[in-house]
Amino acid sequence: MGRWEPNARGRLAEAALELYSERGFEQTTVAEIAKRAGLTERTYFRHYADKREVLFGGTELRDLLVGAVAGVPEDTAPIDALAVGLDAVSEMFDDRREHARKRQAVITANAELQERELIKLDSLSAALADALLGRGVPEPAASLSAETGIAVFKVGFERWISEAEERAMSLVMRDVLDELKALTAGGRTS
Amino acid sequence: MGRWEPNARGRLAEAALELYSERGFEQTTVAEIAKRAGLTERTYFRHYADKREVLFGGTELRDLLVGAVAGVPEDTAPIDALAVGLDAVSEMFDDRREHARKRQAVITANAELQERELIKLDSLSAALADALLGRGVPEPAASLSAETGIAVFKVGFERWISEAEERAMSLVMRDVLDELKALTAGGRTS
Repeated sequence: MGRWEPNARGRLAEAALELYSERGFEQTTVAEIAKRAGLTERTYFRHYADKREVLFGGTELRDLLVGAVAGVPEDTAPIDALAVGLDAVSEMFDDRREHARKRQAVITANAELQERELIKLDSLSAALADALLGRGVPEPAASLSAETGIAVFKVGFERWISEAEERAMSLVMRDVLDELKALTAGGRTS
Repeated sequence: MGRWEPNARGRLAEAALELYSERGFEQTTVAEIAKRAGLTERTYFRHYADKREVLFGGTELRDLLVGAVAGVPEDTAPIDALAVGLDAVSEMFDDRREHARKRQAVITANAELQERELIKLDSLSAALADALLGRGVPEPAASLSAETGIAVFKVGFERWISEAEERAMSLVMRDVLDELKALTAGGRTS
């Protein structure tokens, strides 16, 4: 016990997703996940606080999004900073579409997992707003850009994992961002 | 028992908010809420499933938003339909700013209540997307407009209940909607 297990986090996450897909989230125990990964329950709880967290454990998405937005030149418009952020996260996802589809099917089937996902997206939005504030974007533009960016991400992600969709995520995201521009330009002038 | 209690729902909601504000959400029991409202626990559970639901029980917000959006003329642009929807909900809130501030302070202090709020906003977004689909707006524009509308509502609501803010909610919402238009118009042309 306590010895270093190579890629324990990743192995546990894969095992959990497999079991949740096969048997359902409710019907799977932590003991079974650990066993499938060739690890112990104790190792599981060193990496994840509960059965839900194993599907949401990483900070990779947030780090990529926030890092990309924080790194754009000073005079970049918030909407362009969002585009850069969405490009950065798209790269991370692109070779994982089947994994993402499987994971989303598990989440959609369980109310507790949907809750956890909404909380993660909300804290992603808060981190993005902070990054924009840090670049000098004032409120409420920072929060509004962040919430809007997450809205684009949600809608784009859902489209990207839909059955018929084959385009790379970055193209889908750019499409949704253009759709947003068209939407907001389409109304009456106030 | 079982006899009709005038405005039991409203009395329970008020009593719950008072007690959650005074003692905290965790420290309040359903029995105490019922007692404060001059009702029984049994009556409480006839109206609300749990301690959280009493803060989110109504469908008034959803009905107003969806009703307003469903009622706009056929050729209205989605962004203008959103503006009409936000106007309609603003009217409902405007004489309840102090109540809204108190309620939000209770929600902000408790992770479980924040979860429930996110779920309610998510189902509000889904209902709004349905209303737009029903008016002939295709996907992904319908979902994107709905998510964006909820983003505007969240940011506008937070601003409206902030300490320094005295403008009517409809003015705040219009401001945030204009801010959104400026944001999405501000970037590079793609």
